[in-house]
Amino acid sequence: MSHNINHQIRLAARPVGLPKRSDWQFTEEAVPQPGDGQLLVKVQYLSLDPAMRGWMNEGKSYIPPVGIGEVMRAGAVGRVVASKHPKFAVGDHVVGTFGVQEYALSDGKGVNKVDPKLAPLPVYLGTLGMPGMTAYFGLLDVGELKSGDTVVVSGAAGAVGTVVGQIAKIKGCRVVGIAGGADKCAWIVNDLGFDAAIDYKTDDLKKALREHCPKGIDVYFDNVGGDILDAALTQLARGARIVICGAISQYNNTTPVKGPSNYLSLLVNRASMKGMVVFDYADRYAEAAREMAGWMMAGKLKSREDIVEGLETFPETLLKLFKGENTGKLVLKIAGD
Amino acid sequence: MSHNINHQIRLAARPVGLPKRSDWQFTEEAVPQPGDGQLLVKVQYLSLDPAMRGWMNEGKSYIPPVGIGEVMRAGAVGRVVASKHPKFAVGDHVVGTFGVQEYALSDGKGVNKVDPKLAPLPVYLGTLGMPGMTAYFGLLDVGELKSGDTVVVSGAAGAVGTVVGQIAKIKGCRVVGIAGGADKCAWIVNDLGFDAAIDYKTDDLKKALREHCPKGIDVYFDNVGGDILDAALTQLARGARIVICGAISQYNNTTPVKGPSNYLSLLVNRASMKGMVVFDYADRYAEAAREMAGWMMAGKLKSREDIVEGLETFPETLLKLFKGENTGKLVLKIAGD
Repeated sequence: MSHNINHQIRLAARPVGLPKRSDWQFTEEAVPQPGDGQLLVKVQYLSLDPAMRGWMNEGKSYIPPVGIGEVMRAGAVGRVVASKHPKFAVGDHVVGTFGVQEYALSDGKGVNKVDPKLAPLPVYLGTLGMPGMTAYFGLLDVGELKSGDTVVVSGAAGAVGTVVGQIAKIKGCRVVGIAGGADKCAWIVNDLGFDAAIDYKTDDLKKALREHCPKGIDVYFDNVGGDILDAALTQLARGARIVICGAISQYNNTTPVKGPSNYLSLLVNRASMKGMVVFDYADRYAEAAREMAGWMMAGKLKSREDIVEGLETFPETLLKLFKGENTGKLVLKIAGD
Repeated sequence: MSHNINHQIRLAARPVGLPKRSDWQFTEEAVPQPGDGQLLVKVQYLSLDPAMRGWMNEGKSYIPPVGIGEVMRAGAVGRVVASKHPKFAVGDHVVGTFGVQEYALSDGKGVNKVDPKLAPLPVYLGTLGMPGMTAYFGLLDVGELKSGDTVVVSGAAGAVGTVVGQIAKIKGCRVVGIAGGADKCAWIVNDLGFDAAIDYKTDDLKKALREHCPKGIDVYFDNVGGDILDAALTQLARGARIVICGAISQYNNTTPVKGPSNYLSLLVNRASMKGMVVFDYADRYAEAAREMAGWMMAGKLKSREDIVEGLETFPETLLKLFKGENTGKLVLKIAGD
């Protein structure tokens, strides 16, 4: 791709069900030049997140939807290639919401420098990025994790789930991961140190939860919703906390969301179900990143990225999330260094 | 009825849907005499509660189910007519779980004296009894009520709902009640001081909630579940607390419980949904009863009982709860003083 052209992917239509190629529009523009107080970022890696599906829908949510015709919103990491911003210099590596495009102009708001010597760039989109922050604050703050708790996490082999499970182990908990497929299940137990894994595609979920959580579930960290949330509700311990982080099983529904039929288990078990949005913890990201970087250095927290190459593959690559085809953080590589 | 005979109503079968007369067995026994450490209570008023429907089902819950052939469990208030218990004398009025029968033998555990001069006996089954305690701790403790909150309560004309709404008013909140029928709606506004009422039988629930809660719902106290819970979820304010006290709309289902489809509103609004069982607050009942009795004396907290007479009407009278036919606390009068 030419250095003078900025290839972009814009939202062309609000998807019904899984986003199709025709829901996207491929555009190209001249690479813009920064004005005063702006910087130009060459995007190197794009973060692909389940939440992107929600941003494509009309309606009130925790942030406004992406407008039709707008460049699709996405977190990304890149390199500053031009700057008239006092805080950023050419050559700096930065993370921010740069969108699904090759070059992004920014006023620096919400943009943070990262150090590629401390961790590979894609890690700043995963374990040291939003998914890691989500896991950290969701588990410790919303989930009120205590040592000795039995923790169950769904989407356990995903960007958030892998971090949730490992932090829970660091904090002295019993950890059971729910994932799809034998490979993912083996990986989270053998490589990440989970105590047990449940393959939701083949195992009897309720039976497996009973077996692996003999004292019940103290913290259930839910990334998926649907039947898995309902099964977890049947195995709660007294005073359990359910963290509602996401519901990837429901994001492409063309029928109404499946509500948790077993929610009255909250009453029987004096349990709570609480929603979270990671942005609320922005003023504590640095603190969390420091602690997590320390765990990574000490070999207690492993990070894995599932890297696909090429901006043009974005429409199909995004679907890997909803088909459960990624292991670890799904990242789209746009450019080398 | 003879003074030597104890008429009783026992659970004959586990109901499917609404309990039928054939699910009950009418028995009579000789009135028992207390042994050492026991007291004999003549039951005067029985408490009829939605929770009773749950006690009739098999399966794990917060207390064991009533066994087939056992006297149906019920809270009641009565008079001690014989005692070999050091703490209770003949003539004392007492509340306890005496069951659906005319006379109950007790070892005194869970039995408390009440003063009929301070409040009429049925009030000890309502506002100064379990429903009142449920409202008090559910709202203040589980719901973390703050002055200025917008509070919505379903089952607003029932034993718990009337107290929830009035306590919220005492604490300086805006209170919207959801009830069935124009009479109940007029009563909670005109007599109990609610700011607004929504008639779920005729009003457009979502629209009415938007209208009456322009800043969103801070605390939703749910007694009913089903579609009303789902509608409330669409109008939550940031940081809202939902107290799951009951789900009367679902107790007689012959199909699975309707889970709240809009539960992802918890995520968008960083809200929580928490279950409660009033028994957990037993060591604080006295404190709550003192404060509530004070409010009653001051005319700030009104109590209303819906009193039906005759043990033999129990099977039909209980159904008034599920048909929404009671206003205030439903009580069955078994005997005068």
